[in-house]
Formats: sequence, structure tokens, C-alpha cells
Amino acid sequence: MKALYFNGSSLELRETPIPEAGEDGSLIKVLMAGICRTDLEILKGYMNFVGVLGHEFVGKVVESSDSSFLGKRVVGEINAGCGHCDFCRKGLNRHCENRKVLGIAGLNGAFAEYLTLPTSNLCLVPDSLSNQSAVFVEPMAAATEILEQIHVLPDSRILIVGDGRLSFLIFLVLRLTGASVTVLSKHTAKKEKFERIGAKVVISDEVSQKAIGKFDFVVEASGSPSGWSLASSLVKPRGVMVLKSTYHGDLQFNTAMLVINEISVVGSRCGRFEPALRLLERGLVDPTVLISDSFSLDDYSAAFRRATDGNTFKTLFRI
Amino acid sequence: MKALYFNGSSLELRETPIPEAGEDGSLIKVLMAGICRTDLEILKGYMNFVGVLGHEFVGKVVESSDSSFLGKRVVGEINAGCGHCDFCRKGLNRHCENRKVLGIAGLNGAFAEYLTLPTSNLCLVPDSLSNQSAVFVEPMAAATEILEQIHVLPDSRILIVGDGRLSFLIFLVLRLTGASVTVLSKHTAKKEKFERIGAKVVISDEVSQKAIGKFDFVVEASGSPSGWSLASSLVKPRGVMVLKSTYHGDLQFNTAMLVINEISVVGSRCGRFEPALRLLERGLVDPTVLISDSFSLDDYSAAFRRATDGNTFKTLFRI
Repeated sequence: MKALYFNGSSLELRETPIPEAGEDGSLIKVLMAGICRTDLEILKGYMNFVGVLGHEFVGKVVESSDSSFLGKRVVGEINAGCGHCDFCRKGLNRHCENRKVLGIAGLNGAFAEYLTLPTSNLCLVPDSLSNQSAVFVEPMAAATEILEQIHVLPDSRILIVGDGRLSFLIFLVLRLTGASVTVLSKHTAKKEKFERIGAKVVISDEVSQKAIGKFDFVVEASGSPSGWSLASSLVKPRGVMVLKSTYHGDLQFNTAMLVINEISVVGSRCGRFEPALRLLERGLVDPTVLISDSFSLDDYSAAFRRATDGNTFKTLFRI
Repeated sequence: MKALYFNGSSLELRETPIPEAGEDGSLIKVLMAGICRTDLEILKGYMNFVGVLGHEFVGKVVESSDSSFLGKRVVGEINAGCGHCDFCRKGLNRHCENRKVLGIAGLNGAFAEYLTLPTSNLCLVPDSLSNQSAVFVEPMAAATEILEQIHVLPDSRILIVGDGRLSFLIFLVLRLTGASVTVLSKHTAKKEKFERIGAKVVISDEVSQKAIGKFDFVVEASGSPSGWSLASSLVKPRGVMVLKSTYHGDLQFNTAMLVINEISVVGSRCGRFEPALRLLERGLVDPTVLISDSFSLDDYSAAFRRATDGNTFKTLFRI
């Protein structure tokens, strides 16, 4: 099968054997997969990952330890836990100390014709959902995760720092709470896409003094260290910063401000798939407007060029 | 009156006029005052404060806008808010944007024969409480603040990083929850004092690999940037770090760890005085064992030398 392999310094399209499902696993034919900012960070050295990239996908089960999945369309939780530790027993296998993570840590990913996952990681995709929608379940779950961690009130004032793919999905989810949600964008080019879904967009360079310390929640999803200092100046005393950005490298900042203003910082990563699937199925969120382009695996160079272009939202592989 | 003045580079004992209580204020004769780590940080440039130092005190009211306070012993909340903003109206004057803070920002402090505060900041000290106990109400309130911010369960595993005065008070408060509380100390000399009140003490250099990622809550009260990286390695995924240390300068760290392990960081500063007074009055906490020595204002040089000595706990002024 074809697989897009990261060898630690560059990407190469390899011909590799179809993987084995294993005792409790499933073999999945990948139908569609999305390029995520984490993939781009991995190319810069994040997580020291070597292997087949890709963790956002929708596919069809071709072999499975549970025959009821055979032939069905599925998405899959990307964290494969040990199944025995405290976290796994609480359904938090995404925090298992010995987890492997699809296309990120120890597990070959979705930019390939086939992938394997533990069967317990799979979620059926309802017939009403297109592949184009279902491929967004994983990043959409990362957005709904925020609501599992913080209590947003209907009259909260929220700021999302960043105008990328994840910020867009976070906006789609947080607007459902009734809260006031503003997006901080660097690119006037992206402003329009956000405005089309009803977002109030402020360009970073135009943040007014009046906005300082005014937001109950600031979601930092800019993907760069520069987002932090702006984010931390805009959150209220006793407010909460949700940290979504993972990047390769350190951040330098003054912690006294966190203590003096009693600000909380909440790290937020992957979420449960079920709520994301429900929101998609109910038509309450439509991420498909984010799709900028789609490519075959053979065109991976063009796909990654497109994904790193500042004006692009979501780039997909049709496999 | 005598007042210990910080001129921006050094301390000097000045003879100054007794301050005026003002319309809604009280004039308080200081009886006893404590030296806090924040005072030592101010001497290094923290908060750019210039004026009379000191914010932990117990005193007697000699003039007041409320005659029922006259002649009574009081302690006083150190944050003087505007009284009108959203925070002040919620009783959170410690987060008022235009607040002044006793001996820390814009308000002369307690290392003097007299101080003034808004009368609404005062709390009566019950007769059963000695001056030696009452002088600890302010730092004890900073310790109880933690329980206002996080929900400690009776079977939580807590680690306090730091073996100073504040760590001691935090230990006294957190042990009341029934939780398992361990103290991380740098000084074997301080270990004994903690052990005498029932603390399990681990010396920083002897932290075992087994402790990594095992604590539900880690309270960082070491007062130095080096405390952070150790603290962050010991907290569980989905755990909470409470940040108590304020110091002059920046911290450099990898934020990806916060995101991947979904750790929360909660900045924690001053607390309400009433719960601290109740705990002292009920005899549930006894901070007086912390008192290392007491000095007159004239001996301020010796007092500050004593307070910066690594083996000292609390140094007081008898005024």
C-alpha cells in the first residue's frame, strides 16, 4: 500500500505492506484524511515522531475483532491506551502513560491506504454524515473538549486567539453556548471566512486598550508563542486561558501576572468523539466550509504546500 | 512617628507625620507586623514600590469613620479598591483595577507606628486570639484562598513545593481536608519543623522517579523559578498546579506539556480574612510555632538579615 512516511527529516511516499489488525484491532481502509497543524509541527521536530503521518480520518472497516464493524464507515479515537491503568479505566485513554497516538507517537497514521487501531477506539459514522464532515470529527472533538473542562456561561465573553482551522471549529462549538465570542485574527484575508459564519473578528494589530482584561475566557489557538502574551493581557482577573497550541520550543513569560490576577491556564488537547459526532449529525456545526482543497497521496508535496499557505483552512487527502 | 521606608534602592527608618484617617478610613496603631517574602521581593524591584513596607499586621484602632471600631484590635485586608467597579461590588476588591495595596502598591504599609486603611477593610480580632496569632491572618488568608479556587477531595494527593513560611501555612490549611499532603523541601534544617506538625517531607534532590506525574494538586510556593519545572513534572495528567510564587523576572518553559497532559495552572494570591480568622479562633491551625524572632523597628537591619536567612521562618516587628 502507499503510505506517506516521515523519516525524521523529510516526507516520502513509500510502498509498504498492509498492516495487520491484531487480536483486538481493526484494519481500516482510509477514505479521507485531513492535514492538521500538529502534522506541520511534527515536520519541525515536535514529538520526535518517525512513521506514517496523519490522525484525522474517516475510513471503512475491512477486518475487525468485532464483526459488527465490518464494511462500516468509522472514525477513530487517536489515543490507544494500555487498557489497564487508572486513566484507561476511567475512559481517559488519551492520558494513559503508555499510550500510542495515531500518526503522532508510536503508531502509523492515516496518510496511507490502510491503518490499524484498537477496535475499542472506533465510532460508527451515521449514514447522514458525508466523508467531508466525518473527517472533521477528531478536530471537532478537540474543540468540544473545551466545554468538558470549563464552564462557559450563556453571557460569558470569550476571545479566540488565532484564525486557523482549529480556531474556526472552536468558534462553531462555543457559539452554541450563547456566549459572546470574538476571534482575533492576524490575516485580513481570513476575516471574511469567519465573518460569514457570524464571528466578530478583530485584527491583532487593532486590539484596543479597552479590550485589555475584559474577557472571561481566552482560548489560545494561534499555534505560536506570540499568541500567549497577547492572550494573557486580554483575560480578566480570575478569568481562564485555555491553551490549545502545541509547538516545538519554549515560552518565556512573567508568571507574577498569573498570580496577581489569579488567572487560570487550562491545557486542552483531544476530546471525546461522541459529542462531536452528535453536533455534526444534528447539523449544529458545519465544518465543511473550511475545506480549501483536496489531493491524492501522490500529490503530497502540493498538499503540504497548500496546508502551510497562510490563507488556507483545511487541506484533505482523498485516498 | 517612625516608619521603615523603601526608597527604591534601600530601606531607611524615617521620622514621618502620623497619617490622616480620611473620610471613610481608620487610623491604626500597629502592634505587631510580619516580614513576608513579598517584602523581600520588593527590595529586589518587584512591583516598583516606593514607600513604607509591610502588609501583615495586627493593630488597635485609634481613629475611625465607624466609632464601633475605636479601641478595638483589628487586622486589615490589604487591598483597597475603588468601591464601585464590578469586582468591588462582588466583594473582590483585591482584583479592583484601581486598587492600592498596603505596603505593596500606592499605600504606605505596616512597618511603622501607625497606618491607615479604609474602615471597610478592617476585621475585629476576637479576644481569644493573641497578637502573635492575629498577625498571621493575612498570610493564612492567602493559604485558605487555595480552597476557594480548587476543590480538594478528602483523598486527593497534594504536594507543596517549597519549605518557607507560606508553605507551612498552606500545609496547616490543606491537612484539614483529610487529603494526603507532602512537602518538598530544599533544606534538611527545615524538615524537622514540618515533621513536627505531621508533614511528610521529601528533600528535592531525593524525589523518586515514582513520584513523577502522581499528584492531583501541586502547590508551587517555592518563591523561585526553579520550583516550576519540578512542580510541573510531578502533577498528574488533568491535575492542577496552584501557583503562589511571585518573583521579579521571567520564567521559561515548554507549554506543550500543559496541553498534552491537560494540566491546569491556577494563579492564587490574597484571600478573604474571615475564614482564616475562624480557623485561628477554632484552634484548628497554630501558626505561632513559625515565629523565629521579633525585633523593634530600630533593629530593622537585623530583622531583615534574619528574614533572609534560609533557616528562618517568620520574623516579626514588635511596634
